[in-house]
Amino acid sequence: MPSLLISRSKLFSNLQSICNIVNTNIACVVKDNAYGHGIIEISRLLSEFGIKSVFVKNNFEAIKIKDLFQHITILYPTSFDNLGDNIYFSVSNIDCIYSIKPHTGIELKVNTGMNRNGIEVEELQKVLELIKKNNIKLIGVFTHNGYGDLDNDSLSSEFLLQQKKFIDVKQMVIDFVNKNDMPIPRFHSLSSSGAIKCRNISDDLVRIGIAMYGYLGVDCNLNLKPIAELWANKISSRFLKAGSKIGYDGKYVLKSDCIVSSYDIGYGDGLLRLNENHNEMRTKEGYLILPRMSMDSTSIISDEDSVCFMYNADEIARIFGTIPYEVLCRISPFIEREIID
Amino acid sequence: MPSLLISRSKLFSNLQSICNIVNTNIACVVKDNAYGHGIIEISRLLSEFGIKSVFVKNNFEAIKIKDLFQHITILYPTSFDNLGDNIYFSVSNIDCIYSIKPHTGIELKVNTGMNRNGIEVEELQKVLELIKKNNIKLIGVFTHNGYGDLDNDSLSSEFLLQQKKFIDVKQMVIDFVNKNDMPIPRFHSLSSSGAIKCRNISDDLVRIGIAMYGYLGVDCNLNLKPIAELWANKISSRFLKAGSKIGYDGKYVLKSDCIVSSYDIGYGDGLLRLNENHNEMRTKEGYLILPRMSMDSTSIISDEDSVCFMYNADEIARIFGTIPYEVLCRISPFIEREIID
Repeated sequence: MPSLLISRSKLFSNLQSICNIVNTNIACVVKDNAYGHGIIEISRLLSEFGIKSVFVKNNFEAIKIKDLFQHITILYPTSFDNLGDNIYFSVSNIDCIYSIKPHTGIELKVNTGMNRNGIEVEELQKVLELIKKNNIKLIGVFTHNGYGDLDNDSLSSEFLLQQKKFIDVKQMVIDFVNKNDMPIPRFHSLSSSGAIKCRNISDDLVRIGIAMYGYLGVDCNLNLKPIAELWANKISSRFLKAGSKIGYDGKYVLKSDCIVSSYDIGYGDGLLRLNENHNEMRTKEGYLILPRMSMDSTSIISDEDSVCFMYNADEIARIFGTIPYEVLCRISPFIEREIID
Repeated sequence: MPSLLISRSKLFSNLQSICNIVNTNIACVVKDNAYGHGIIEISRLLSEFGIKSVFVKNNFEAIKIKDLFQHITILYPTSFDNLGDNIYFSVSNIDCIYSIKPHTGIELKVNTGMNRNGIEVEELQKVLELIKKNNIKLIGVFTHNGYGDLDNDSLSSEFLLQQKKFIDVKQMVIDFVNKNDMPIPRFHSLSSSGAIKCRNISDDLVRIGIAMYGYLGVDCNLNLKPIAELWANKISSRFLKAGSKIGYDGKYVLKSDCIVSSYDIGYGDGLLRLNENHNEMRTKEGYLILPRMSMDSTSIISDEDSVCFMYNADEIARIFGTIPYEVLCRISPFIEREIID
């Protein structure tokens, strides 16, 4: 069966590179099964590295790793029921506040211009009053700057505008908590690319996701290395003559005599489905992957016992007109994860 | 959180329609988490309908449903260790035979022209000898006709050639088992589209996958109904002015003032990632889904508490230049399944 090899040394090297240039705390994003890598496996490694604070997708993910970190924030809670003193809930909407029990720890998400999730800045004062009135523990206040990913080293005016808006949010929150004798919450706004571009960060932490997995989209001389490789094993082999047709509707026609093998991975395992409309795709070893990919198997001009289908999600993303995030996070959770050095 | 609603009555209606026109036994394909629908939920319903025989992807899937059927065949075994008397292993390659213990029940896969998996017809005699010599139980012999899916009612010459080749395979197997006092195995070659187009079937069963989930690609007056709908819930809403930018890099710009809400589903939940290069995509209710989709949330011009993102995988497949199989089988297994009438 296929397996996803996770390199401990590459993950640690990526984390160290990021720590070296970011002048604040690093929290890690392990949501969506750690961007497809395996939330339990990645969380164990992060804990070993010394990471104390992480972000997960929902309550189910938080429960899986609850003993590994001092601080786990659920970005998209499925309920606000207490899951442990180290597990906090993101709140993106004023109506939620009414269903949260006293003493529950929350992080308040504020919209600063991405116009996606979070309360509006104009609602902030009212929400803070409600939090105080209902005796909810305000652990953090954060936003998501959606303008950090542009493919260059500079920071766009939209990025800077969102950052400026968040500075105002911080000031409003600090004024409120000081006036009401509440503890100052932690503040954060930046994910990987913003954190790495924006060298002088005044937030309490940054949320590192894609960069620790080895991708960034912008070149920042960080020497990030993709930490995962996806391997599959041969099902069967055959020698075929030039002109032989392969796969559904015989869409691939062999150009010369060769050995073609099928391997035990397909789009049912989370690969994007290669068809005759895509550009050429090759394994790490350089073997040609033949369209159309099947749900559980893929034909390759190769006779190897095993081949590496994914070693760099950027390459695959380019072929499919998408981003490495999508390539990674859809790797089937049913595929075996193996930690290697 | 999002949920996948599975309609019991639509599944049963699809199965009944197929039973009505196919003149042999129906076995069901529940591999790849039942094409993304949920292998346990679908298998329970199939068992209730009276299905006795199914096909799964690997050993892990077989174990999940081992008490529900008389006959489970693993198409891509991860090992040949005994899992129970009702669980059989597909064998696609001559070398496997040597690692299979005596009395293990197998189904032999033969390549009849798809040139993907299976032993070659030329190897058949040798493999049958080995099976006999090693005292392996030959439960079935099958092939996969990869030419049944063309978008019309007719059967191509390639389809008919594969069928003819399989008739020869059957005769070779029958001659061998008769000569050696072995029981006659079951024979099968057709999946949904081939089974439905080819009205007079001489095989012992057909393998029905995509059609029971409500899709076919060809119109055969069967009135198949997609059995699943994917719903998501509102995270937060905001009123935005025309010209407001939404999501990563502000790629979507609102054409008029309106309420935009974010919903708790994204490409991390298995949706294909909508970006600005795709055609317009709408919910079942007709609300416009705004690119770029995020990993965990999607913005829609809607103020509803919940909306239906997928009601017909064909529609989504068209937008992304793929097939409904890919749309369905990648629905995250972590999404809650709910059986409705």
